[in-house]
Amino acid sequence: MSEVLVEVIRGELVESCHRGYVAVVNSQGELVYSVGDPYHISYWRSSAKPIQAIPVVESGAMERYGITLKELALFCASHSGEDFHVEGVLEVLKKINLNPEELRCGSHLPYNKGAEVKLWEKGLTPSNLHCNCSGKHAGMLVVCQQKKYPLDDYTRIEHPLQQELLELVKEFCNYPKEKIIIGIDGCGVPVYGLPIYNWALAYAYLADPFILEGQRGKTVKIITDAMTQFPEMVGGTDRLCTDLMKVGKGNLIAKAGAEGVYCIGIKDQKLGIAIKMEDGSPRGREPVVIEVLKQLGALSDEDLAILKKYHYPENRNHRKDLCGMIIPKFTLKGVLA
Amino acid sequence: MSEVLVEVIRGELVESCHRGYVAVVNSQGELVYSVGDPYHISYWRSSAKPIQAIPVVESGAMERYGITLKELALFCASHSGEDFHVEGVLEVLKKINLNPEELRCGSHLPYNKGAEVKLWEKGLTPSNLHCNCSGKHAGMLVVCQQKKYPLDDYTRIEHPLQQELLELVKEFCNYPKEKIIIGIDGCGVPVYGLPIYNWALAYAYLADPFILEGQRGKTVKIITDAMTQFPEMVGGTDRLCTDLMKVGKGNLIAKAGAEGVYCIGIKDQKLGIAIKMEDGSPRGREPVVIEVLKQLGALSDEDLAILKKYHYPENRNHRKDLCGMIIPKFTLKGVLA
Repeated sequence: MSEVLVEVIRGELVESCHRGYVAVVNSQGELVYSVGDPYHISYWRSSAKPIQAIPVVESGAMERYGITLKELALFCASHSGEDFHVEGVLEVLKKINLNPEELRCGSHLPYNKGAEVKLWEKGLTPSNLHCNCSGKHAGMLVVCQQKKYPLDDYTRIEHPLQQELLELVKEFCNYPKEKIIIGIDGCGVPVYGLPIYNWALAYAYLADPFILEGQRGKTVKIITDAMTQFPEMVGGTDRLCTDLMKVGKGNLIAKAGAEGVYCIGIKDQKLGIAIKMEDGSPRGREPVVIEVLKQLGALSDEDLAILKKYHYPENRNHRKDLCGMIIPKFTLKGVLA
Repeated sequence: MSEVLVEVIRGELVESCHRGYVAVVNSQGELVYSVGDPYHISYWRSSAKPIQAIPVVESGAMERYGITLKELALFCASHSGEDFHVEGVLEVLKKINLNPEELRCGSHLPYNKGAEVKLWEKGLTPSNLHCNCSGKHAGMLVVCQQKKYPLDDYTRIEHPLQQELLELVKEFCNYPKEKIIIGIDGCGVPVYGLPIYNWALAYAYLADPFILEGQRGKTVKIITDAMTQFPEMVGGTDRLCTDLMKVGKGNLIAKAGAEGVYCIGIKDQKLGIAIKMEDGSPRGREPVVIEVLKQLGALSDEDLAILKKYHYPENRNHRKDLCGMIIPKFTLKGVLA
């Protein structure tokens, strides 16, 4: 069962609320805290992107094509379609000698309003490059080029790249491959349906990479370093993932997913966090992300002040008068006694 | 307690869901059907607009200033900021010799994407006129001019116009004035916090106006005729209120409110319906609206075919592939045995 995580207050009344589920897991696989059912099954959505970037590193493609850390961060992104994102994806495609038309992500308006308005002012419409997943798709094409995989059906679950990624999800989440429910994402690639406990476990491994055997730990460190060193590539201007990783100064690995999904790794605590909002809303999710980190002691008062607009969003009307607030309303329940 | 009203399906999994409350009340004040707590208290938001338009008619302002039925419909609107809405509001302001700056609604981008893009292409920003509530505010100014009320603070609860409106809400909802919780709306005017049963009662009166005494029934008929004869003024292109009233051919009076609020009157059944989505989402609300009307037998198969995009919204990705559906999941519980 879900629990109320956030209240939307207007005047003296709770006008709306957002329910959801939280699981906090350590790199030993122990469930440490939860709210609601920590084994609730939903799609991991874009929070799986750091795992999906692994073959770029391990296939040798990163070295061969001269992919930079900044570009690797873009492969883990749900970016805002700002100029520096679009240019980054274009640069990667140049390195592997492909055109933007090869991206099978589809197009939508940039998340960043300024970037959208720029398009309209120029009389343009958005391209595949503006799709928030264009970086992930570029990364997938990098691997396809390196491994000589076919390019035209790389989004299908039967494609060898997608089978590799499914195997990686199985490993990081420690969850049977045949039990993972496959859906189709907003950008056309497979999404993975499995319990949020298992999402959190994967992020605990991202936070504590050298618990993994062999090359894997080094690969994970390269990817999470890319994300924390270039957080603006993972989200964009005024995006929670970006602002949270900036504040985290290397200690927090944060990645949102559609439908109210969020995952965070806390390196110094070797913890992974998974959040799923029942109604799929980003509005409810953002205060929950900050509140969980606050309750875990992962943010200083100074950090919390910087992130206040996400923690306690103000509800202002079209005249900018304050009408209400959005307030997190839950306490992490300790599971280990 | 709220109940799950809508499931968001992706592939084989329920990815998200939306909870809420429904109350169906007849013009005798009897609760006929419900889902979840029919006495749940929340703000009535813009679904109160038809009631707020009453003084325009009863003050004599409509006659004096030559306000048309089409303009009256605009006073009940949360419009999309399309050209015909903006021009309609401007025309009303001309009739009462006021400028758009007198509207205290604030501004936001037009709900209609085409209207928004037109602004950007011309290098313009939205004005008060584009605010979805500019019609309601124009109606309020009409009454202020007629009654020689001060113009500069007409949005404050202490203003004589707002006191009249509060009295009307009390009467239509049959709810003690002192128990109505006052909040501030997105457009700066008071909103009314009271149980959804009482919202539904008001809409039962809108559906069965001549149960009301004296002039009141005639006034209500003028307002609801305006809404059903000019439904494009109440919402806009591809908006549920507009499309539902078109299909209803005079039998359905429908008005959305922010934060997942919806109210409908069914004339031939003398019923009022109130819906409140717990999470405040319009995504969940729209399938619920159509499903309630279907279960009440208020829509034909042909009507349902026209309204299918609201009833069972398809979830298509950026490549237009079908990934899932949104599906209503509830049964109205009969309260009268």
